[in-house]
Amino acid sequence: MTAIEPFDDIRALIAKMPKADEAARAKARARDVQLTKPAGSLGRLEEIAEWMAAWQGSRPRVDNPLVAVFAGNHGVVAQGVSAYPASVTQAMVANFTAGGAAINQICKTFDISLKVYELALEKPTGDITLEPALDEKACAATMAFGMEALASEPDLLVLGEMGIGNTTPAAAIYHALYGGEAEEWVGRGTGVDDHGLRRKADAVRAAVARHKPHLGDPLEILARLGGRETAAIAGAILAARLRRTPVVLDGFVVCSAAAVLLALDDSALDHCLAGHVSAERAHRHALKLIGKTPLLDLGMRLGEGSGAALAVAIVKAAVNCHNGMATFAEAGVAGKEE
Amino acid sequence: MTAIEPFDDIRALIAKMPKADEAARAKARARDVQLTKPAGSLGRLEEIAEWMAAWQGSRPRVDNPLVAVFAGNHGVVAQGVSAYPASVTQAMVANFTAGGAAINQICKTFDISLKVYELALEKPTGDITLEPALDEKACAATMAFGMEALASEPDLLVLGEMGIGNTTPAAAIYHALYGGEAEEWVGRGTGVDDHGLRRKADAVRAAVARHKPHLGDPLEILARLGGRETAAIAGAILAARLRRTPVVLDGFVVCSAAAVLLALDDSALDHCLAGHVSAERAHRHALKLIGKTPLLDLGMRLGEGSGAALAVAIVKAAVNCHNGMATFAEAGVAGKEE
Repeated sequence: MTAIEPFDDIRALIAKMPKADEAARAKARARDVQLTKPAGSLGRLEEIAEWMAAWQGSRPRVDNPLVAVFAGNHGVVAQGVSAYPASVTQAMVANFTAGGAAINQICKTFDISLKVYELALEKPTGDITLEPALDEKACAATMAFGMEALASEPDLLVLGEMGIGNTTPAAAIYHALYGGEAEEWVGRGTGVDDHGLRRKADAVRAAVARHKPHLGDPLEILARLGGRETAAIAGAILAARLRRTPVVLDGFVVCSAAAVLLALDDSALDHCLAGHVSAERAHRHALKLIGKTPLLDLGMRLGEGSGAALAVAIVKAAVNCHNGMATFAEAGVAGKEE
Repeated sequence: MTAIEPFDDIRALIAKMPKADEAARAKARARDVQLTKPAGSLGRLEEIAEWMAAWQGSRPRVDNPLVAVFAGNHGVVAQGVSAYPASVTQAMVANFTAGGAAINQICKTFDISLKVYELALEKPTGDITLEPALDEKACAATMAFGMEALASEPDLLVLGEMGIGNTTPAAAIYHALYGGEAEEWVGRGTGVDDHGLRRKADAVRAAVARHKPHLGDPLEILARLGGRETAAIAGAILAARLRRTPVVLDGFVVCSAAAVLLALDDSALDHCLAGHVSAERAHRHALKLIGKTPLLDLGMRLGEGSGAALAVAIVKAAVNCHNGMATFAEAGVAGKEE
């Protein structure tokens, strides 16, 4: 066993991850075929309702959904990897609090609660091209902090992030986990130009090269190359799993946290849906590698959980159709002719 | 001029179709770049908000959306083209009224009004393989009836249909408008087996062959090969345009009505969004031919307006982001670094 002590608790939790309730899934499936529609005609809505039932272990419900947005700052912004100054992270957190951001409007539209978690914004992580982003202890503690997103017992958890510069650590995580070239993993983020894009690729390449000897362990990848928000999100995904709470993943950064868990355990994301595919270039490829088909493909690339929160509308409709529709017997509708 | 008299009024209305309000679109675009997000980062949500503004001629709004479902019966079911008996059309209308169908749950989820229009269900259209579905006068009258969907002055109109057998007339319309082979235009509808699929292709081929001499005029195609619900939907799309009301199109059948209008005037669908791409095989191709990129791709194939009503969630979120977000100045957030 090569486990490093600060991560022992995390590894113990991963070993304890529960599976879905297959009886609840079967019950949902049995109900579904009785509903007044041709079998399969609601497509992914049927699949979602059954998946929700399986993880919730009951009739599926979306009564108390929560968007948890984690915000962090990044030492790597010193490498010129973002189109915006680091101060924007704090300013956007204030905007979330004041109700002025996109995620506020989307949450209001679909009656979703929103919590924003500031993660030591005054203390950016280490510049990953020069040093670890976080030491193991800080990473483990941040993962534990992320687990607080479950405190209000949401029945559906949506994960989002805010952090100027954070697509660079995310690209570094993917590059460390999945290989390829640094260039393949970087995109324009909030809108860097060609020079910025080259600086991002350089930073990702340098970071992975510098930490190479330590990147055999996914949790080391998270600590050394990630960000505070990435670590917190990984913790929240894990905590959701332990409670069997379904999760909707957002874009490029959130999925990098998810990819770390998947590298630790093949089944770690079974309770997660991909809300959308981001316009951030490598996200489509990342989704394939984590085995998820996104619900939405709308060219969004904002973060904040915005794409995933929008996907909650689909999940709500799926659950409401499942629970609210009449059966053929109830409605007196004739079934299929044989 | 070869116009046939009953369609003269329709042709006159098509000639009067208004254009979008480009000043309102420009105003929306100008606001959009000031909102607290990187430019373009909400992807299609930004495009939708601007498009809504352009057609509504004001700040975009979705305060009074309506799903209008038109139901009709089809003589061509005698050819064995559906997996369900024709009596299901009436039974499903009763299910809509009782609130038990998928469309009821989706409307409830997103606070959309629902109106169901029964179109002489006791009087199926003519069997298109043997005779015209409708004569010109009945077709024009049904188009006029469809215009009633605008009576309550919705600010967003969603069009749906119910009619056992109606994917066959829809396939015949596409085949008449766009050519190809009959086989390319038919799909499994509510779930026919391989034999049923062959019967559908045979019916479509036979119908187009029988009416061939009259299919130079898109309105003749609609009358001879369509259904009552198809004609009513074409009328509703046109009436919406005359009021500059944005429309969300649903699946294979609704788009066949839209395609007829497009064949009459290149700009006839500028006020329409494609809500989703259906799993009904040829819908993806049909959407390309009518020049629309669907908002959703979820494997749905139910009709009833269900896919389009689900897409209203996206439109609502787009409009709410546009109207509710703070500007950079309001939020005191720094802009992009140059």
